[in-house]
Amino acid sequence: MGKVDKPDLPVLAIDLGGTKIIAAIISSNVEILARDYHLTLASKGPQAVIDRVIACIDQLLGKNNVELSQISSISIAAAGAVDSSRGLVTSSPHLPGFDDVPLRDIVKEKCGVNTFLLNDASAAALGEHRFGAGKGVKNLIYLTVSTGIGGGIIIDRRLYLGLSGTAGEVGHMTIEVNGPGCSCGSKGCWEQLASGTALAREAVRRIRQGEVSSLTEMVRGKLRNITAEKVSVAAQGGDPLALEAISEVAYYLGVGLANLVNIFNPEMIIIGGGMAKMGELLLKPAREVVLKRAFRLPAQAVNIVPSQLGDDAGVIGAAVFALKDLESKLELSDYLQ
Amino acid sequence: MGKVDKPDLPVLAIDLGGTKIIAAIISSNVEILARDYHLTLASKGPQAVIDRVIACIDQLLGKNNVELSQISSISIAAAGAVDSSRGLVTSSPHLPGFDDVPLRDIVKEKCGVNTFLLNDASAAALGEHRFGAGKGVKNLIYLTVSTGIGGGIIIDRRLYLGLSGTAGEVGHMTIEVNGPGCSCGSKGCWEQLASGTALAREAVRRIRQGEVSSLTEMVRGKLRNITAEKVSVAAQGGDPLALEAISEVAYYLGVGLANLVNIFNPEMIIIGGGMAKMGELLLKPAREVVLKRAFRLPAQAVNIVPSQLGDDAGVIGAAVFALKDLESKLELSDYLQ
Repeated sequence: MGKVDKPDLPVLAIDLGGTKIIAAIISSNVEILARDYHLTLASKGPQAVIDRVIACIDQLLGKNNVELSQISSISIAAAGAVDSSRGLVTSSPHLPGFDDVPLRDIVKEKCGVNTFLLNDASAAALGEHRFGAGKGVKNLIYLTVSTGIGGGIIIDRRLYLGLSGTAGEVGHMTIEVNGPGCSCGSKGCWEQLASGTALAREAVRRIRQGEVSSLTEMVRGKLRNITAEKVSVAAQGGDPLALEAISEVAYYLGVGLANLVNIFNPEMIIIGGGMAKMGELLLKPAREVVLKRAFRLPAQAVNIVPSQLGDDAGVIGAAVFALKDLESKLELSDYLQ
Repeated sequence: MGKVDKPDLPVLAIDLGGTKIIAAIISSNVEILARDYHLTLASKGPQAVIDRVIACIDQLLGKNNVELSQISSISIAAAGAVDSSRGLVTSSPHLPGFDDVPLRDIVKEKCGVNTFLLNDASAAALGEHRFGAGKGVKNLIYLTVSTGIGGGIIIDRRLYLGLSGTAGEVGHMTIEVNGPGCSCGSKGCWEQLASGTALAREAVRRIRQGEVSSLTEMVRGKLRNITAEKVSVAAQGGDPLALEAISEVAYYLGVGLANLVNIFNPEMIIIGGGMAKMGELLLKPAREVVLKRAFRLPAQAVNIVPSQLGDDAGVIGAAVFALKDLESKLELSDYLQ
């Protein structure tokens, strides 16, 4: 399984997130030739999401006058616990209903093209390691901090996927044992306290408690329309409530980062996802928490940096995952530890 | 550095824990030829502890009529954040005052024998992987649950030590962000809630609150003499308070295990250390928490088992670490990621 048949042809890479789908045509030397964005509309359930993925593929190829026979493979990076070897999304807090959905084979049958499936943050880790902030680094953790928190692990310059392919679910590390319930079924997961969703929730909570903020006017009183992005805009305008909400979330981000520093003693942690766009506003206080809570030696040694590839990390990594056979004659099983 | 000069001679291995020191003479084919136990008396500070380590070496060799010139190397597995490449104990919650102590070179100079230093749980992970419960497993986490909680990580059949050699400090993973303060400087560390120390503390807390237990009589009213071991004995006798205290600690053990399962998707987690002697009384409820809190696929895939080598895992692993050069021509730098 899993050999790229037509080595010089581009890969069609999909980054299937809880909020949006990115589709890209990526050349065999890993250049993005074309790119499309769509909303996932995850709440409509697996069949609707799969239909949209297929539609994204058709549209992107159509717009660029490329036939399915002119791509070497399709590679899908999906948000959730992915069993790469069997091609299943086994469960996903951000794609409701995706329980053991054989997404790889469904797409493969529909399109008639060899298809790969891996976790989105693992893909992004691979992308950043080969072409982004992590070039040349021996071991690193990549984090996508957006709707939730996903993680990808590079150890000894290789993607580490664990026994079944689900390694890196760091967003579901409990950091507050009796904390808020999570859609994964657990409580006090890191992503409940340090994601974009957590930031928006914290801002709304403060406004509901009577605190004043420019955010209220920004959403014309419709507090449910407050997003992490809007909190960030308000913070850049000096809004004290927005700044405090970010500081709160940065603290929790730092607590989880300290855990990863103690566990992995990594050379680098790369922060991607929507929240990374806040830059130092988020990262500086988070780094301070790491220095305070983690062991001194690994805390001082780690380099916590923003992603370089931004939104493209996932599709680039997905393409690398598909092209790996070509580069190194590795089989998928070589990725699975 | 780090070559074993005299390949057929035994290694003198030391497991330096917060409570006890184990010294062993281990043959080049990794059989334990002789073994000694001493108390660490860690509270007396680094110089006293180092003197005791040297005394342990002298005594063990003396008792067995072995000269320093008849061992190939000394290999020390120490509780704490160890910088293996520089031979330092950089800090240690269980060895007070060990801040950047060059333990490797101190022992090397004193004894005139090539000396190695690594973390105790990393050593035990190596021991269990080569000769214990983890034989043939591709990736596993070893945990020592005793005074504190230490961890060792095997990835792709090799010991993973991270950038500076301190990887695996899973006991200092925050699982309750505002939980009890830890001697590492952080709060709500796993070992504050799920170690032997936590178990004894929980039993004492319940007795102080007026609950009745056979433990009170067992220590003749001196509650500070309650240890995890005594709680375990009381539980085996059916003492309800002891059983409840164990159930509480097993719950927290499970919470941290679920984190490791989500992060690593490991094939196996091996539980060693004094607490492992409780067996299923501790492991069964902990496994149930893992199934409840971790993602389904990795939770069902992982095998959570007790250590096979028991107290010997650390010294055996330390010997393997020293002998590795011999086996595989690896340098120490090959262990450091």
